Amino acid sequence: MSKPGQLSEQINQAEDLYPTRGREEKIVERVDPVVYGDGQPRGEHSLTPQQLHSYAQNGFIVIPGVFSQQEVDVFNDEYARLAVSGALKGKDELVREPDSDQPRSIFSPQRFSDVFDRLSRDHRILDKITQILDSEVYLHHARINIKRALNGKSFPWHSDFETWHAEDGLRRCRVLSAWVMLHENSEFNGPLYLIPGSHKLFVSCAGATPEDHHKASLRKQEYGVPSIHALRQLSEEGGLAAAHGAPGTLILHEGNTMHGSADNISLAARTNLFFVYNSVLNTPAEQPFAAARLRPEFLGSRDFTPLQPLDNQFS
Amino acid sequence: MSKPGQLSEQINQAEDLYPTRGREEKIVERVDPVVYGDGQPRGEHSLTPQQLHSYAQNGFIVIPGVFSQQEVDVFNDEYARLAVSGALKGKDELVREPDSDQPRSIFSPQRFSDVFDRLSRDHRILDKITQILDSEVYLHHARINIKRALNGKSFPWHSDFETWHAEDGLRRCRVLSAWVMLHENSEFNGPLYLIPGSHKLFVSCAGATPEDHHKASLRKQEYGVPSIHALRQLSEEGGLAAAHGAPGTLILHEGNTMHGSADNISLAARTNLFFVYNSVLNTPAEQPFAAARLRPEFLGSRDFTPLQPLDNQFS
Repeated sequence: MSKPGQLSEQINQAEDLYPTRGREEKIVERVDPVVYGDGQPRGEHSLTPQQLHSYAQNGFIVIPGVFSQQEVDVFNDEYARLAVSGALKGKDELVREPDSDQPRSIFSPQRFSDVFDRLSRDHRILDKITQILDSEVYLHHARINIKRALNGKSFPWHSDFETWHAEDGLRRCRVLSAWVMLHENSEFNGPLYLIPGSHKLFVSCAGATPEDHHKASLRKQEYGVPSIHALRQLSEEGGLAAAHGAPGTLILHEGNTMHGSADNISLAARTNLFFVYNSVLNTPAEQPFAAARLRPEFLGSRDFTPLQPLDNQFS
Repeated sequence: MSKPGQLSEQINQAEDLYPTRGREEKIVERVDPVVYGDGQPRGEHSLTPQQLHSYAQNGFIVIPGVFSQQEVDVFNDEYARLAVSGALKGKDELVREPDSDQPRSIFSPQRFSDVFDRLSRDHRILDKITQILDSEVYLHHARINIKRALNGKSFPWHSDFETWHAEDGLRRCRVLSAWVMLHENSEFNGPLYLIPGSHKLFVSCAGATPEDHHKASLRKQEYGVPSIHALRQLSEEGGLAAAHGAPGTLILHEGNTMHGSADNISLAARTNLFFVYNSVLNTPAEQPFAAARLRPEFLGSRDFTPLQPLDNQFS
């Protein structure tokens, strides 16, 4: 764990500590801490020392029952309302399936919904995030991902941070995803697979970022994707893990944890709500590190207002 | 269970008891027994009454440890030898990946390999098959399926018997697959999913079979594929199951059991060896029931010679 203040002294340097998208793939040591500061609880919903240790070691933690079924029902109703509301019509935030009107992703749901706005600042999430990152945080982006039944598409292995550094200008890995299962995530419906411990290494990926890469990568990522050799090296010790759980399960996964997901040929959709929290001490550089220009705001927010925790009960 | 002889009286009628590939999808009751005869043991490697009951109810059974790791090593060595041998070069039996020289399927391995020929007649398999089908059997076809690591492709839900009836002329469902895991089949590498109990209903699929359908369907099946509505109805009671197991696991699955598999984004290939056994009392009609002509011999054999069980030990 880092000494407090250690990072903030370096934060305005434009030095690229995680060069990527070069000619050759390389695996390098992570420069940053995983748990910042001393890991002390930040509120009654903080992680236990055991949970924090598990997160630090594996790069993720699956916490069942953080939200009740009643609350998940509220989230699903709100999602269903949003999906057909006029608010998103014609906006980039709504990504539809290529062959139907069904939504595949809804970005920034917190900007279109009071429920999701409040949820993004819920004590049950923020107490854990601020404990891990030892600072206030803002939302780098948020999205609802729907992997439809029968032919929901897989997503290749990648580190989110690799993209956020290369394409959004995040300097350091002081960022993580917190996501809520809105449907059961089972072995059958394309659950997230993760490589435990992979967050401790950084895969500098081969291949220069094409212009407007995000337009293609939201469908299928082809740059910032490690080779099977790198993936095998990362998984040598810890193998693979899968995030299974009932609706209401909360998963925290570190920005650099390698993950991917298989397709969904099951008869049930798999819907998850993602919030990506970045430290306010890690606001992005003016320019991305390995792309021609920054991605749009809904993929990499420039609103760095710290989130104030809320006591919610959704019903 | 049927009375002995019941089926053989009907076998030469050309009546189509399982009409399919029509204008509309229909779900109808299975006409045939699942376990033929009285299910009495046929040898020391027969199923126990409990195993037989489980097979009859679910339409499949997963039996770990039927072949030792040492024997599986022999099978894998033999597969590796076959894959690079000249014997298959340029033959239809060898199906390669679209983007590489790597084999995706090898059909009729028993015709190119003494090891696989002996394995296809192994007591440990045949005792169970003849017990279930209450007759001698021949090989309708055999294949090795390799689902490669990282981007092995999924296969949509289907009943094998629907194809074998429609395209190969198998009159009755007195046929089943016995397959051996040559690699571990885990939740990560695209294991076979099955719908328990689905073998008791027959989904008459919509859509006329195109000419030479097998050429496309070996890559991705698009005819003989049920709708999500039919699949939901089939799975209402029993949900979904997955066939996981260590190398050497034997799976028996009934010809009409609905199954499919997800893609393989894991870092390990998934290789399985399939033998399809048909009763000698169920040899195919001269013409298929729902296709212009019969598929090639390596997909639907016309050699009906009954298989004689062998005591093997591979080392």
